[in-house]
Amino acid sequence: MRESELLQHIYSTTNGPTPLVPIPPGDDMAMLLIGDQAVLAAVDQVIDGRHVDLQTTPLELVGRKAVTRSLSDVAAMAGHPVAVLATAALPPDFGHDRATTLFDAMRATADQYACPLVGGDIAINSDSSAPLVCTVTVLARPGPAGAVCRNGAKPGDHVFVTGALGGSLGPDGLGRHLSFEPRVREALILAGLLESRLHAMIDISDGLGRDASHLATDSGVRIELDTTRIPCNDGFDWRRAVGDGEDYELCFTAVGDVPARLGDLPVTRIGRVIEADGPDGPGLVLMAGDTVIDATDLGWEHRS
Amino acid sequence: MRESELLQHIYSTTNGPTPLVPIPPGDDMAMLLIGDQAVLAAVDQVIDGRHVDLQTTPLELVGRKAVTRSLSDVAAMAGHPVAVLATAALPPDFGHDRATTLFDAMRATADQYACPLVGGDIAINSDSSAPLVCTVTVLARPGPAGAVCRNGAKPGDHVFVTGALGGSLGPDGLGRHLSFEPRVREALILAGLLESRLHAMIDISDGLGRDASHLATDSGVRIELDTTRIPCNDGFDWRRAVGDGEDYELCFTAVGDVPARLGDLPVTRIGRVIEADGPDGPGLVLMAGDTVIDATDLGWEHRS
Repeated sequence: MRESELLQHIYSTTNGPTPLVPIPPGDDMAMLLIGDQAVLAAVDQVIDGRHVDLQTTPLELVGRKAVTRSLSDVAAMAGHPVAVLATAALPPDFGHDRATTLFDAMRATADQYACPLVGGDIAINSDSSAPLVCTVTVLARPGPAGAVCRNGAKPGDHVFVTGALGGSLGPDGLGRHLSFEPRVREALILAGLLESRLHAMIDISDGLGRDASHLATDSGVRIELDTTRIPCNDGFDWRRAVGDGEDYELCFTAVGDVPARLGDLPVTRIGRVIEADGPDGPGLVLMAGDTVIDATDLGWEHRS
Repeated sequence: MRESELLQHIYSTTNGPTPLVPIPPGDDMAMLLIGDQAVLAAVDQVIDGRHVDLQTTPLELVGRKAVTRSLSDVAAMAGHPVAVLATAALPPDFGHDRATTLFDAMRATADQYACPLVGGDIAINSDSSAPLVCTVTVLARPGPAGAVCRNGAKPGDHVFVTGALGGSLGPDGLGRHLSFEPRVREALILAGLLESRLHAMIDISDGLGRDASHLATDSGVRIELDTTRIPCNDGFDWRRAVGDGEDYELCFTAVGDVPARLGDLPVTRIGRVIEADGPDGPGLVLMAGDTVIDATDLGWEHRS
């Protein structure tokens, strides 16, 4: 049983774009119309023992991550965050003070991004071995240039990434996967600068390999990445930068000039988009010197 | 550790009504503004061993209930359902087929109410004793007369209830708590007929006693119910009708004429709203013949 296959089932049995749901499930967020207003919506989970480890991770960081992961989805669509709703299913011995600490952290993080907590639910499990399960639903509105999807990459685009990649999950369970800054502001600046030249975008949650593959396959193109250009965090090489997950940086494709920085955040050109007219079809290839690696499935997925 | 106290903490530390969140958390749904559009939003959980029992309950009914509970919140606000997002945290041995059965049931139920599933997430727990945790977030837009809140009951109103109450949870774990019809259509008809005369409404999830108390305390009034008037399901008396939960009927207060039926659904006047100027303050009293019972805390809450 693989999560990605189960999600694929959900997407494949959902209607395609409709007038009321112009972006169906399968992108970082869906878009629906409420009255005349386009609304972006997505939901994500954080589970003890899977996405966080309560033995080593302060609850404040668990609550923060539950919200910032969802905000990273808003960044991937170049949206303005509007509101979040949060749930927690708690082990019976979790305790009142820890529960309020968790929710206070979720609310404080949401407020920090002007994205108020407008709903929540708490349930207490009867079984003492039940893990903490948090969910965060995030609502957003598209930026002035509209939502940026995964499926818009075009041959002739260049491929870019913000920040540096690799090593987000430290050996002690801590690290940048808990403290990252979702790139909401930078995505809006980028969309404002590039407008219709920004063709496709995704946030890097499953690893550059897997997420750039999503861009390629959803767009029906091939993406070639030059491994020498991939910006790596100190102490990590391109293999970790491609394979590790939870960087929560942005990977996007665009045509024409792209700024080298968004505020303090570097933007690096790492590859190009080409036609998928060969026998291999859409996908991702890595150019490592003279070696060409088919990397369509490279990346990181939560164990199941 | 009580769920209601934890939820109270969330509500009490959330900002009151603001221009962007005119109905803050604490009602059946919050209302927020996205652009110029008022949007209602709420989230709820269904947990194996708490709200359902997978040992006895077909997965189709689990998925159905996860969605219909949320739609009942839309009914309580007299809203039009727009979309749902659903998550499942699964035990590791749950199996692919059962997972898709669960999501198919959620999607089919949502479609039945013209409220498409627009987002979802599936995670697989590492611990085999972890229970199934589903969440459903529902989005809605207010009906033509606006959202109907819990806090609008006024002295002089009468109190009404739809359908019949009590015995929703059968001794075998099955029963109406799995098969109930959320009163979405009836609530919209009611709001259209009564317009500004419909002052306050709630859906009966925790039991008439507890939910009518919410109307009373949130509105700062006293509600008197006549136990002889409370419509009971066959085989159950007014004590069960007041104390049992999960009827998912509507309880509302209104002034002036109210129809005795909404389509096939009976509407029964069961009490009145009076000033809370006595020493007891806002709350609920039951008039059982000559006996007056303070019932502010009567009702049903999931064990914690």
